[in-house]
Amino acid sequence: MNKKLTALILFFCAALIAHAATRPNVIIILADDLGYGDLGCYGHPTIRTPNIDRMAAEGLRFTDYYSGQCYCTPSRAALMTGRLAIRSGMAGHDTRHVLYPNNPGGLPHDEVTIASALKAQGYATCALGKWHLGDLQDYLPTKYGFDYFYGLPYSNDSDWTDPKYRNADTLSLTPDFHHFNVPLYRGTNIIERPVDQHTLTKRYTEEALGFLEKNKKHPFFLYFAHTFPHVPLFASERFRGTSRRGLYGDAVEELDWSVGEVLNWLRKEHLDNNTFVVFTSDNGPWLQKKWNGGSAGLLRDGKGGTWEGGTRVPAIAWLPGKIKPGLTHELASAMDLFNTSLILGGADVPKDRPIDGVDLSPLLFGKGKGNREVQYFYQTDELFAVRKGSFKAHFWTHEGYSKVKPEQHNPPLLFDVSEDPSEHFDIAAQHPEVVAELTSIYERHRATVTAGKAQY
Amino acid sequence: MNKKLTALILFFCAALIAHAATRPNVIIILADDLGYGDLGCYGHPTIRTPNIDRMAAEGLRFTDYYSGQCYCTPSRAALMTGRLAIRSGMAGHDTRHVLYPNNPGGLPHDEVTIASALKAQGYATCALGKWHLGDLQDYLPTKYGFDYFYGLPYSNDSDWTDPKYRNADTLSLTPDFHHFNVPLYRGTNIIERPVDQHTLTKRYTEEALGFLEKNKKHPFFLYFAHTFPHVPLFASERFRGTSRRGLYGDAVEELDWSVGEVLNWLRKEHLDNNTFVVFTSDNGPWLQKKWNGGSAGLLRDGKGGTWEGGTRVPAIAWLPGKIKPGLTHELASAMDLFNTSLILGGADVPKDRPIDGVDLSPLLFGKGKGNREVQYFYQTDELFAVRKGSFKAHFWTHEGYSKVKPEQHNPPLLFDVSEDPSEHFDIAAQHPEVVAELTSIYERHRATVTAGKAQY
Repeated sequence: MNKKLTALILFFCAALIAHAATRPNVIIILADDLGYGDLGCYGHPTIRTPNIDRMAAEGLRFTDYYSGQCYCTPSRAALMTGRLAIRSGMAGHDTRHVLYPNNPGGLPHDEVTIASALKAQGYATCALGKWHLGDLQDYLPTKYGFDYFYGLPYSNDSDWTDPKYRNADTLSLTPDFHHFNVPLYRGTNIIERPVDQHTLTKRYTEEALGFLEKNKKHPFFLYFAHTFPHVPLFASERFRGTSRRGLYGDAVEELDWSVGEVLNWLRKEHLDNNTFVVFTSDNGPWLQKKWNGGSAGLLRDGKGGTWEGGTRVPAIAWLPGKIKPGLTHELASAMDLFNTSLILGGADVPKDRPIDGVDLSPLLFGKGKGNREVQYFYQTDELFAVRKGSFKAHFWTHEGYSKVKPEQHNPPLLFDVSEDPSEHFDIAAQHPEVVAELTSIYERHRATVTAGKAQY
Repeated sequence: MNKKLTALILFFCAALIAHAATRPNVIIILADDLGYGDLGCYGHPTIRTPNIDRMAAEGLRFTDYYSGQCYCTPSRAALMTGRLAIRSGMAGHDTRHVLYPNNPGGLPHDEVTIASALKAQGYATCALGKWHLGDLQDYLPTKYGFDYFYGLPYSNDSDWTDPKYRNADTLSLTPDFHHFNVPLYRGTNIIERPVDQHTLTKRYTEEALGFLEKNKKHPFFLYFAHTFPHVPLFASERFRGTSRRGLYGDAVEELDWSVGEVLNWLRKEHLDNNTFVVFTSDNGPWLQKKWNGGSAGLLRDGKGGTWEGGTRVPAIAWLPGKIKPGLTHELASAMDLFNTSLILGGADVPKDRPIDGVDLSPLLFGKGKGNREVQYFYQTDELFAVRKGSFKAHFWTHEGYSKVKPEQHNPPLLFDVSEDPSEHFDIAAQHPEVVAELTSIYERHRATVTAGKAQY
């Protein structure tokens, strides 16, 4: 290679690095089973979340943001791929709502994830906390573009040592972590089993700060998927017994502390105005856990269902100086984080497959108008409801975790979820034209969506 | 009178005026039927209340504040006198929940009101909006220490021209104010009947600013009792059809505008740091009005009942520079506004009668610890429930407006309203000692409280 060419290559490399350095970092903080009503800034009367509230005051708080689906596995598959979980075969079926330990499948390897797309753009990538997209070696986070993984392969109530610990009604308020033989991974190795769940939030946070410190000189993507407040609940000694909302509140308040640690590190390092941070939840509250479950506030039902409480969750986007502080009622979805993260990171959104996410940039950095027109509500691989604008039509209804069979509605039930966020008053009879439009959207979607090979 | 004595008297008068000038003004803004979940800062997803949210950010927001009772008349009697409504005979009985037009009685004249106590201390006093403590000439606000009254003698759904307009289910979303032959008073004179309800909030606000402007040089007490969002709902042209929560949202957003007008006037006149302002509601949301009724958020039930949604309402105390911004979970009651206002105004709290209010000063201006230990929940003149600390015992339960008879509980139901604000999980069996303590408080109160002569 002659000297001129070498110099030219070096110049382009330097330019590329310089360019990469200006691209924003991305941090997605995902709570597990945190309900719409469980944060101070969303109106909870007892749980104190000053760090998240400050994040909301400095950022954009969403009132109409939906997680990927109403259960853990499909919700995370959707977030990570920008696609409805049915497309990747991760939506579940019938009573199979999430992946259980030793499930032979997982997220298909031909899916593009936020991590794989950003890694290809030179980002350092890290997954902390709960994965739940496959627990066999081939399906762990490091197979999907993550440089590093520290966390649990699935939910913290898996691997129960006795079936009685599984049951919602017998879970004590102060469980013993030995009842759940859950492994803690670093990379692809189990480093602790059963994991001491009391210190999980604390240890995740230490890992997060370690990753950030190590990578502060070039772009990074941190996917920080907390284990709590998913049941069984644990909190470290500093938080245990300190909240007014019992152990659930302790766990959420420790999570709030963790958010504060991450944001304060960004502020200290002057990376706050170059790091796009989102705080959200994977689905609504697990109401069946009673005292141990969260609250959807005024929304109907919770986790596992397609009423608003199932997937409408807290969401805050933060990038001081670039995202104007405020509140938005625009429709948004976890899948939109895929498009938005890729675009921020300079990656192309895949064109060889259907992508259900939309770019949030106009909403975040522009005039505040979002790109999302329609929200689909799936329970496993069945489309139950469709929202467009403020109208939501339910073609099927089924309370989360109910043992009663789903009920079909023809014509569908219709609610105006802006005027009637609690979905109390069916107004189908008053709006036949809206029913017709939503029915047509429902039918068109069902006729055109292609289900991926079922992974469980 | 010799010159020396005259000089001395003038000197004392001047001193008194100077002293009075330093005493804080008091403004109590009372919404009608606004629920716990109906403001932005209390988590409503659709209703926008930027002025009240700002007031909350600059002031102290309560999570555990209770209105005087679960209906309008007793609630206002309690607030105005610092006494449980049963003591003044204003609690109602059986199905008589509030005063209706031409009721022969009203608030007894030997009651001390906030207005009469502050007037005696040299305050200019004004009542705006809904009164509802008696509509005959002898019972209008100017008989209770108010220099001026502009407003309605009772609820805006009274005096219906046809019984069908009374019925919750037939109230249209855009009613005609002519259906309610409600009078508007100035002082003791009817100046408009039926009152055009569309412009009520606007006109009250103009009256408020007029009163403030006129009295800005000496201490004032403004009792600003809005007519809305009590059903039937009206909003002025500027707000009609503008909110995402329908006419209910329009009415609340106009009310928010009104709060902004008052606080902005105080800021402009540099009276903000010498004016104690409270924003609150008279009881929970009127759920029976469906689309037209508000939301108690995650609290159970609404107006008319003794579940939390009946009386736990938004409350914000504001006095920049003196009240530290924040959130408090301390117990507080509308009756405490009586004691607090009197003490701020230099008046003695009456010692010749039982007073149920407590001084909020330590909570507002001190170390943040409140004086209130117990909260009593009445439905009309029957004690239904008692709260101490985070425990609440229900001896009777009855949903607001339910046609089912009240149900007695012996032993009582017990809830921890901090851990379980939605009152879902009865824990009486787990806490016999708490049940015993609350039962003893309940019985002692019933044995010692003296009911005043029933006024309706």
